Amino acid sequence: MTSSAIQVIEVAPRDGLQNEKTLIATADKVELVLRSVAAGARRIEAVSFVNAARVPQMADAGDVMAILRGEGDLRAQGVSLIGLVLNRRGFDRALEADVDEANFVVVASETFNRRNQGVSIADTMAQIADTAGLAKHEGLTFGVTIGASFGCPFEGEVAEAQVAALAREAAAMGVSEIALADTIGVADPMAVERRIALVKAAAPGVSIRCHFHNTRNTGLANAYAAWRAGASALDTSVGGIGGCPFAPAATGNIPTEDTVYMFERMGIRTGYDLPTLIDTAGWLQGVLGGKALPGMLAKAGLFPAAEIAART
Amino acid sequence: MTSSAIQVIEVAPRDGLQNEKTLIATADKVELVLRSVAAGARRIEAVSFVNAARVPQMADAGDVMAILRGEGDLRAQGVSLIGLVLNRRGFDRALEADVDEANFVVVASETFNRRNQGVSIADTMAQIADTAGLAKHEGLTFGVTIGASFGCPFEGEVAEAQVAALAREAAAMGVSEIALADTIGVADPMAVERRIALVKAAAPGVSIRCHFHNTRNTGLANAYAAWRAGASALDTSVGGIGGCPFAPAATGNIPTEDTVYMFERMGIRTGYDLPTLIDTAGWLQGVLGGKALPGMLAKAGLFPAAEIAART
Repeated sequence: MTSSAIQVIEVAPRDGLQNEKTLIATADKVELVLRSVAAGARRIEAVSFVNAARVPQMADAGDVMAILRGEGDLRAQGVSLIGLVLNRRGFDRALEADVDEANFVVVASETFNRRNQGVSIADTMAQIADTAGLAKHEGLTFGVTIGASFGCPFEGEVAEAQVAALAREAAAMGVSEIALADTIGVADPMAVERRIALVKAAAPGVSIRCHFHNTRNTGLANAYAAWRAGASALDTSVGGIGGCPFAPAATGNIPTEDTVYMFERMGIRTGYDLPTLIDTAGWLQGVLGGKALPGMLAKAGLFPAAEIAART
Repeated sequence: MTSSAIQVIEVAPRDGLQNEKTLIATADKVELVLRSVAAGARRIEAVSFVNAARVPQMADAGDVMAILRGEGDLRAQGVSLIGLVLNRRGFDRALEADVDEANFVVVASETFNRRNQGVSIADTMAQIADTAGLAKHEGLTFGVTIGASFGCPFEGEVAEAQVAALAREAAAMGVSEIALADTIGVADPMAVERRIALVKAAAPGVSIRCHFHNTRNTGLANAYAAWRAGASALDTSVGGIGGCPFAPAATGNIPTEDTVYMFERMGIRTGYDLPTLIDTAGWLQGVLGGKALPGMLAKAGLFPAAEIAART
């Protein structure tokens, strides 16, 4: 089921920034999206439409989208901007903000879903059913992320069957993509392969996307396993920034530049330009006050180094 | 070819410490070995017998071994102590120090072999042929590490065929194990799987060990790929310390605790106790002056956390 390409979705503007304590200027958020486009990103989770009191970093989501829609025609460049939503109100805001895709989150554990979005899983799934119909009517691409698909910080292990059941329900609602999110970084490669196989069986024909955090150093192993198992897309953040504000000890997404390096070195195309990505990570580090970012490629450098590659 | 167990070889006392600028006390080196044994390590690269002027950290290798041989009977506990050597003189010292295994290094690229051990690859292979016979006569387990198997900091790409040819030669000399070392951290999972397949074909019946550095974040992905492809052993260092003094920008080995966590979570047995490993990483951090170590599990904690696991 392996393919010679993988879609790498840039999520730094959303999952990357949302955990940053310092508020980032709207103009820097816009620049992050545009720099990602320049580096090769064609799907970008640009914003989330959530409660600004709980996630202040995303309070300017509407402004970010408005400026981006004024910045030349990203659609003509084949760029799809994703807005993450947790409920019907967020979906309405996403629609109004003219996103290309809405990504609706349900969390696989009851406790975490209630903490993250204030309602039961059943309530969230009912909202997904409603909005899926609306999205279809509006011509909006609509995907569902199943949060905590590999483990929950409050309940512990999450059953594979629970993830498959949610995927089956979502597929019946007509979603085009299902994302399995390892919100707290506890997935292992075999769990990834098993869950993808179960979700493929439960939701035939629906694209599978994976979202990993490198909390325990298994992030790129999980990414490799996901590609092997037939996932078509991976969420990454430039520099490896990120983490969920409502998940204890959650750390960064897998770094875009490290993930792209791994796949490109394997001959799997991503469409990204690595030197531009490394520059973007450096720029982002500056925006974040110069603190060290988790991404490793920017520190270690490409291989072979340019001067050696030129000789050989 | 996958197995339900993997041998995790602790190399922090050798590859881990050799790049540390501050000289570590002999007693701390001994304690590191003994703590590793307590955590579950049964093969430990305890020392190297190299030029003390070039690698001052290993100058007390003989003393470390002498103290360890006085510390109860490690052999009765099934512990095998490995000494790394680069030439005949090192091998003689290893024999004298009463190691259980000698691990002879040859580097896959001519430039790096000359820089690392001062002679050509052909000269090193001739020394390996001599010492392999001697080891057999002395009843010493004898393995060969092929350094820079995935890329060279001086020459760039290393041909798969070169790695396979060295493995074929080593196998003909009667070595019991061949280690493929990614000395500068440029391997990717597919390269790992391909090289292991080639080495298995070139050296039938010889055990395959892999040695990865997590320089570009692909270390655990490579470890997973190695296990999938049939490697029986992986080198790791507690805390993820390490790096070759003669390879520019080389960073730490894959961390023992992170690697053990990944495999144990997949249901692949390692024989280690994770809480003891995490304690060892904390102790080692103290020995190294409190600096942050690359290992991630010790920071993130086990999953599920003990209090949740106890409830479920």
